[in-house]
Amino acid sequence: MSNCIIAQSGGPTSVINSSVVGLINGNKKLKAFDKVYGGLNGIEGILNKNIIDLSSIDEHNIQNFRYTPSSGLGSCRYKLKNSKDSSEEYERLIQILKEYDITAFFYVGGNDSMDTTAKLSEYAKINNIDITFIGIPKTIDNDLVYTDHTPGFGSAAKFITTSVLETYLDSSVYVNNGIFILETMGRDTGWLAASACIARINNKPVADFIYLPESVFDEEQFLKDVKERFNKQNKVYIVVSEGIKNKEGKFVSEFECISNDKFGHAQLGGVGQYLREIILKCGITTRVKALELGILQRCAMHCASGRDLEEAHKVGYLALEYALQGESGKMVAIKRNDNTEYKASYFLVDANKVANNVKYFPVEWINEEGNFVTKEAFSYFEPLIEGIPTLNLENNLPKYKVFNN
Amino acid sequence: MSNCIIAQSGGPTSVINSSVVGLINGNKKLKAFDKVYGGLNGIEGILNKNIIDLSSIDEHNIQNFRYTPSSGLGSCRYKLKNSKDSSEEYERLIQILKEYDITAFFYVGGNDSMDTTAKLSEYAKINNIDITFIGIPKTIDNDLVYTDHTPGFGSAAKFITTSVLETYLDSSVYVNNGIFILETMGRDTGWLAASACIARINNKPVADFIYLPESVFDEEQFLKDVKERFNKQNKVYIVVSEGIKNKEGKFVSEFECISNDKFGHAQLGGVGQYLREIILKCGITTRVKALELGILQRCAMHCASGRDLEEAHKVGYLALEYALQGESGKMVAIKRNDNTEYKASYFLVDANKVANNVKYFPVEWINEEGNFVTKEAFSYFEPLIEGIPTLNLENNLPKYKVFNN
Repeated sequence: MSNCIIAQSGGPTSVINSSVVGLINGNKKLKAFDKVYGGLNGIEGILNKNIIDLSSIDEHNIQNFRYTPSSGLGSCRYKLKNSKDSSEEYERLIQILKEYDITAFFYVGGNDSMDTTAKLSEYAKINNIDITFIGIPKTIDNDLVYTDHTPGFGSAAKFITTSVLETYLDSSVYVNNGIFILETMGRDTGWLAASACIARINNKPVADFIYLPESVFDEEQFLKDVKERFNKQNKVYIVVSEGIKNKEGKFVSEFECISNDKFGHAQLGGVGQYLREIILKCGITTRVKALELGILQRCAMHCASGRDLEEAHKVGYLALEYALQGESGKMVAIKRNDNTEYKASYFLVDANKVANNVKYFPVEWINEEGNFVTKEAFSYFEPLIEGIPTLNLENNLPKYKVFNN
Repeated sequence: MSNCIIAQSGGPTSVINSSVVGLINGNKKLKAFDKVYGGLNGIEGILNKNIIDLSSIDEHNIQNFRYTPSSGLGSCRYKLKNSKDSSEEYERLIQILKEYDITAFFYVGGNDSMDTTAKLSEYAKINNIDITFIGIPKTIDNDLVYTDHTPGFGSAAKFITTSVLETYLDSSVYVNNGIFILETMGRDTGWLAASACIARINNKPVADFIYLPESVFDEEQFLKDVKERFNKQNKVYIVVSEGIKNKEGKFVSEFECISNDKFGHAQLGGVGQYLREIILKCGITTRVKALELGILQRCAMHCASGRDLEEAHKVGYLALEYALQGESGKMVAIKRNDNTEYKASYFLVDANKVANNVKYFPVEWINEEGNFVTKEAFSYFEPLIEGIPTLNLENNLPKYKVFNN
């Protein structure tokens, strides 16, 4: 029997390691390959032969790895050149894979990783190389086309929505409350920020306004809306995606500031901080707080979605099955079946179709005022945060296991 | 029988509502008072007769309230004048308490709340008013004297340490990693930042350096330490308290910057952002991230400490017992018994002794280099984060219940 290899690429998520374990478990059951190798730090590491044998690791460590956030095999941001322009790396990679008797290569990642998967598969087909390349989706941004959603997104959404609930309560305790701004990730798409809609108390969303990159940000209208709402209820809770743009198509967060000490120019603060500044300047209230969730939202395994973890495991498992069926240059995608109760099925899509596209938050799910989402968004997000993982503990903290350190 | 009242004051925590429920449960068991009233928004609300009957609320809502972060009765930052200078508010408050047939007043809070408790108790004694005033400790800062630790701190420490683990992993996935700076609260004391020491992988702390207000911050030494560590291991993880000060005793975070657009002067970013700037300026690496946990650390009930929740409940329960014994002008404090296994007992301390003091992080628990803590700190922190609460859910998110909205 031959071997296979799996590697991770791009930004980490809470559930990317679960996909690796899905593949390992798939091989344990199907006995398709002798060994499951792990490439450390993606393509970059494989090119340096940083390769470990995942199938020899004991079950206890694999279980901890399954519930560990971050890319536990290490990651890279490495873009392969077109093989027509430069085939050197392709040749070297194929040579290494052959050296390890590898006939299937699995890449867990987003857009760029699907580009790599497509290119390698294409190169192998042209050159009659008998290696299969399958992509496994992963990104908190939820911006891959064809798939209903991406593994990693549900857990990020769960941390965001939980934090929205908790910070809303925290920022509402005084008689004179202020304005709270929560900034989420999402440079190009608004999925993460939009998910905040499902944070509700007494069935009413706690967020007053949600701003997404898919809707032009009008500063004047924003200040008008916030002022009106503040006058009405004495507090305003705002969720904003880091990637909102003005009518010139420029990122609202692209503002610089000059510190008055030795540093000269320095870019400080993101869009949340900017909105805070303009609210203060406008004189609506002096009580304005901005909080950037930053990388917490993509690594908060302690608040992950059980369904997300399961689906991440499943796409890893199925990638192995599809490879056995001789598929190559494809990505495993998730389909949401059209029934009232959430149920997912899985299918394959061409990796190169995923690579060169972005799935935006549907504009028809944004309200007319451009400051909130419609009920379709609620139905879309709700099932994705279901379930809570039970983590192994050590000294009362989660016991995490990675292989790249 | 007469009635009692409980109110909350100062900054919220994850477990302050648990203390209120402890008192309600104490009264259910001991049947000491007819009604347990809740004063909304602390003294400020009581002076406006914003008072609700907590003993009439059904068990289901009380249970949700018990596991809800933030001050669910609302809060205030209201400092009573000395009664000798102005007794008007005292008279009005006593009149309202008498109107509601209240003979015991419980105040959950930190330094300022204990000041209020002491002043009111003193005023009642002098004027022969038969009302008891008991303080219940609460603050994430852990800076109250006499008590081993404060309810609220353990849960904040648990969120901080969990986030340190998770963000450490997230920021270590590449071949070329950078420097990560996590900023915690703690304007005057370093307890919160110091707790990060217990975040370990393979029994080694993941934080390389921890900086506290109790140790003078030397910028030059800092940059030297960070550079050396970065050269050695290609990544550095730093935890810093917002309140660190330089040798002039000035907050390191007191730096202003001038934005280049319409705003003029604006204070942006805290100390984490400042450290990021000086590392960049020093040229150690261009990969530097700073993350401010902000209010997340005091409201993350989804990651609370079970022990903290229990102890918060206990001090509420005992406050009622002590009031029955005729005590007044005291605060319930926690004692850690000197045995290897953690066990707490409880005692009373004069509220005015707590009011005018700050418990600093012991300087003997800081290493000689002023950039980490000693093993005594590990032993102190570890038991405080034990246990995980099981939260009631609604639509897969925690079901929270407050009474101030």
